[in-house]
Amino acid sequence: MNYSQLFIPTLREIPADAVIASHRLMFRAGLLRKLSNGLFAYLPLGFRSFKKVENIIREEMDAIGALEIKPTVIVPGELWKESGRWDLFGDSLLRLKNRLNNDFVVSPTAEEAFTAIVRDELSSYRQLPLTLYQINTKFRDEIRPRYGVMRGREFVMKDAYSYHADEASLDETYQAMGRAYRRIFKRCGLTVIPVKADSGAMGGSGSEEFMVESEIGDNTLILCKDCDYAANVEKASCAADYALPEPESADSIMSIENAKAAAANTPPYEKIDTPDVKTIDDLCAFLKTEPKNFIKTLIYRAVNVELDLSGAPGCSKLERSKPSKDAPFVYTEAFFAAAIRGDLDINEVKLASLLKAGEVSLTCDADVIRLTNAPVGFAGPIGLTEIPVIIDKSVSAMNDAVTGALEKDLHYRHAAYGRDFTSWMIEDIRTVKAGDRCSLCGGELYIKTGNELGHIFKLGNKYTRSMNVTYLDENGKSQIPVMGCYGVGVDRTLASVIEEHHDEAGIIWPASVAPFHIIIVPIKYAGEVKNSADKLASELTKAGFEVLLDDRDERPGVKFNDADLTGIPWRVVIGEKGIAQKKVEIKHRRDKENRMIDLNKAVIELVKNIRDELDQLKK
Amino acid sequence: MNYSQLFIPTLREIPADAVIASHRLMFRAGLLRKLSNGLFAYLPLGFRSFKKVENIIREEMDAIGALEIKPTVIVPGELWKESGRWDLFGDSLLRLKNRLNNDFVVSPTAEEAFTAIVRDELSSYRQLPLTLYQINTKFRDEIRPRYGVMRGREFVMKDAYSYHADEASLDETYQAMGRAYRRIFKRCGLTVIPVKADSGAMGGSGSEEFMVESEIGDNTLILCKDCDYAANVEKASCAADYALPEPESADSIMSIENAKAAAANTPPYEKIDTPDVKTIDDLCAFLKTEPKNFIKTLIYRAVNVELDLSGAPGCSKLERSKPSKDAPFVYTEAFFAAAIRGDLDINEVKLASLLKAGEVSLTCDADVIRLTNAPVGFAGPIGLTEIPVIIDKSVSAMNDAVTGALEKDLHYRHAAYGRDFTSWMIEDIRTVKAGDRCSLCGGELYIKTGNELGHIFKLGNKYTRSMNVTYLDENGKSQIPVMGCYGVGVDRTLASVIEEHHDEAGIIWPASVAPFHIIIVPIKYAGEVKNSADKLASELTKAGFEVLLDDRDERPGVKFNDADLTGIPWRVVIGEKGIAQKKVEIKHRRDKENRMIDLNKAVIELVKNIRDELDQLKK
Repeated sequence: MNYSQLFIPTLREIPADAVIASHRLMFRAGLLRKLSNGLFAYLPLGFRSFKKVENIIREEMDAIGALEIKPTVIVPGELWKESGRWDLFGDSLLRLKNRLNNDFVVSPTAEEAFTAIVRDELSSYRQLPLTLYQINTKFRDEIRPRYGVMRGREFVMKDAYSYHADEASLDETYQAMGRAYRRIFKRCGLTVIPVKADSGAMGGSGSEEFMVESEIGDNTLILCKDCDYAANVEKASCAADYALPEPESADSIMSIENAKAAAANTPPYEKIDTPDVKTIDDLCAFLKTEPKNFIKTLIYRAVNVELDLSGAPGCSKLERSKPSKDAPFVYTEAFFAAAIRGDLDINEVKLASLLKAGEVSLTCDADVIRLTNAPVGFAGPIGLTEIPVIIDKSVSAMNDAVTGALEKDLHYRHAAYGRDFTSWMIEDIRTVKAGDRCSLCGGELYIKTGNELGHIFKLGNKYTRSMNVTYLDENGKSQIPVMGCYGVGVDRTLASVIEEHHDEAGIIWPASVAPFHIIIVPIKYAGEVKNSADKLASELTKAGFEVLLDDRDERPGVKFNDADLTGIPWRVVIGEKGIAQKKVEIKHRRDKENRMIDLNKAVIELVKNIRDELDQLKK
Repeated sequence: MNYSQLFIPTLREIPADAVIASHRLMFRAGLLRKLSNGLFAYLPLGFRSFKKVENIIREEMDAIGALEIKPTVIVPGELWKESGRWDLFGDSLLRLKNRLNNDFVVSPTAEEAFTAIVRDELSSYRQLPLTLYQINTKFRDEIRPRYGVMRGREFVMKDAYSYHADEASLDETYQAMGRAYRRIFKRCGLTVIPVKADSGAMGGSGSEEFMVESEIGDNTLILCKDCDYAANVEKASCAADYALPEPESADSIMSIENAKAAAANTPPYEKIDTPDVKTIDDLCAFLKTEPKNFIKTLIYRAVNVELDLSGAPGCSKLERSKPSKDAPFVYTEAFFAAAIRGDLDINEVKLASLLKAGEVSLTCDADVIRLTNAPVGFAGPIGLTEIPVIIDKSVSAMNDAVTGALEKDLHYRHAAYGRDFTSWMIEDIRTVKAGDRCSLCGGELYIKTGNELGHIFKLGNKYTRSMNVTYLDENGKSQIPVMGCYGVGVDRTLASVIEEHHDEAGIIWPASVAPFHIIIVPIKYAGEVKNSADKLASELTKAGFEVLLDDRDERPGVKFNDADLTGIPWRVVIGEKGIAQKKVEIKHRRDKENRMIDLNKAVIELVKNIRDELDQLKK
């Protein structure tokens, strides 16, 4: 294809709002333009690469037997009401009404549409498993879209949904998806960090995120220096930094009996005056000790709690309701105490997940006073009966601790877990930090920020149950199938390729997603140079490669700059002097130096190199 | 691909709301399901064919140098306000607001988005011509969606937009598009009727519609039995059925001078009593004459008239306004008289187009009385000065006619055009009917109903002007480019293929858009039959064809019915008896009878036949 016939408006200047490399380069290289905040148009060069990413995803989905379908982008609101997400999804769901006043959503994801289709056709276990996917437009009404297509409002996502008779079948598809995702990113030339939702130590995982490292990533990742442990900080766990007797060391919670035994030499707990002490630091100074000897207790307010609280302390009068007809029963509001060792922090996401709550946050001072009968700063697990107490595993190993006494200016000392207090729940609710130790190998953990490119997820029967999907099993009994969902953002994957493959001068495309494989730059597109350039372009095209021929009447410097900026992997320069000797210059975009080769060997050389790279990416 | 691994929910029963073959068969053959009224999901088999249509369109667009881009589906309302269509488009435009209260539209077409992109990048004539296209989701908020994807709310359209420095360049692209469209439909196996907007007699056309015949078509087409004249009734013209002296016969309007001369022997016009006469039929009976001797005059109300009326009779006090900031000036309301020979009918679409009016309709009785000073039924062109009079060409040849006298129960006779009255405008505003004669060859015209699959259109500078697009010409002078737009509905094209290619038993796919080329039906998928079926499938796949292997444990009758219903072009049946003699049955879906051929010749035979068909479609 001739450069002059394409539409590649490259820019010298950097768009003012472009703070990351991919955003900057997609604009500068003429791949992308902005229609309005968060809405972008791919120009011809950008869309060529976009379609290549799309196609790699399609091939890998087809290879594992997923079937491509095309529901609509605008989906009936009724379906979202059935699943309950019409009310629960939040404001990033773009809801709209048509002229007949019917409700619709612009799909941000498509569990409802797929499940509605499957529901109408599914009758027998013989139809299962079934995996369907689409590569289609999505919309998320971001308040503050930024970083170009990395966080736009409209984007394209491959989303797949699988339906199964049992967990084993779901797991099989889930594992196949995990492998397909690894191949997709490998083929795009991306280094991804697969992050399991649960700690590896817990065994089988129900969710895995595929992250790329990014300075502007939304996700904080906890990684191990010594093994491949990787987790989102929201769910990361770490090794306990205290020893427990066997067999308890494995899950690092002390049993009540062992805890009592461990406290055998601890004096009975007693109340002490701690006047004017407001923080743990104050308390440390006052008692001349360290934070790790304190039990820190915080009061949380949780909203839309799905967990059954009928047996929880202080919760007998709480009532459950449904936010919408088909949504599950929830407690609109509930309060909890959470206790952790004083040198550690509570992870609110872990806490919310434990409670199956919509949101969890520290409650206001008035509620703290009402619930603990004391000002802020004196909460503690001993004698706290108004609300359920959740304590972190770390507290189970504390047999001589300081903690609030539920009275102003008073603390307890010599408090021991098991002997002086227990809890409603004891779980891992700790925020893992850099320097903590890996739960798998004991290695040092460190932190990276990452962007999520893909996500695979076992949904169980959340949607199939709320949307009444059933099939008859081998015994003719009606059953609800289990479901998985699997997404990859196409735009974000493309932008991430540029993030990982660029330099000062521009993009450096991997061959698999490059808009063209080769750019031919005639120094002056005329005479013998033109003839050779045309012939070479035609031969390379016949060999199955995409060739961009820079036929513009521009200075060589301009052409070289545009070639570097647009990042076409191989550049062939044809000049008058060289061609007189039947020689051309070739150079990979990565390389600093070019080399002269015989014109009649150029096709073989380029074809070999590009095939090698494509094969390498596919391995 | 094995049938059991696909998701092909065929149906015996016909969906209740499916009145046309494509709707019925897309559901029955498991290609399509409904999400809600006007919103459909393509299932795997349907989407395979859908992508083939899409790809044929893409190849033909690329072949003429159009460049594919991808703007968003949700487009900023601002752009539509700039073009004026935010206000003018009507209720089928789905307008919406996001959480920040910004206006958006779900694109029904994309002149604005494309023009906004081009505007920002266009600087020099050297960048022109430029043709960009997308194949992307569109939405039209139909009040009464029906006929399946033939008239759905969400659909996929290929829409291209071209930008040019001059009309000659626009015409070149327009012609290339016309040829590309013919190839697209040919390759899909469709018989289209290209319909020029203007009559061929008028020379170069600014718009061409590609129609398929359809019982449920929205369009009434006027076709010639003897030549390839084809026009939408809204714009069709026909030969005059009266003789005029040279050179006037060519455009069939009599000059005033010649009209006066032709009335030389007509007595002076005179008022006659016509008591109790209400209709033309009454008048005919009363005067013992025929409708073709009357001048029928009707009073119309037109809204949003763009045509300059400053010099028109009775319009000097009309004021112009802008419905929105960037829209053109219009007269909100204006009244007109339209006169035509009594045996003919006025075409309101032609009239509206003449006046550049948003809408034209017969006005109410009160307005007729106010404007003609007479009750309904006595309007006529003589003495009518309150409003502009538009007369049809046919009236110019009338030199002894009867017409209303603008008084109750009175008519004129011996009225002659040119001598007794003229008009503000004389044009073709006649509705062409079956039996009229072709303006090109004199052949008999007949009527078909058709559905529009594609449309190519010269837009001029409508959008480039309102959206302020300019470039510098060779002399450094700022110019506004001219523009063309070109659309094809992908869903509608696919459905039309089925309309044209089906029988009682199901679809009969052309090879180019078939979801699979070959279906292999083993009578029982086991033993030697299975081995042969697998081997044949693998060889045909290697040869580059798509093979569906019916591996289901179903009765042969069920398999044959599904094969017929889904319409795969070639069927290969493998049974135990045949395979013992190394023979298989092959049959094209079109044929009634199958034939036995040697197993080892099956691949060659099928490959040859399919290649031949594909080549034929491409010719």
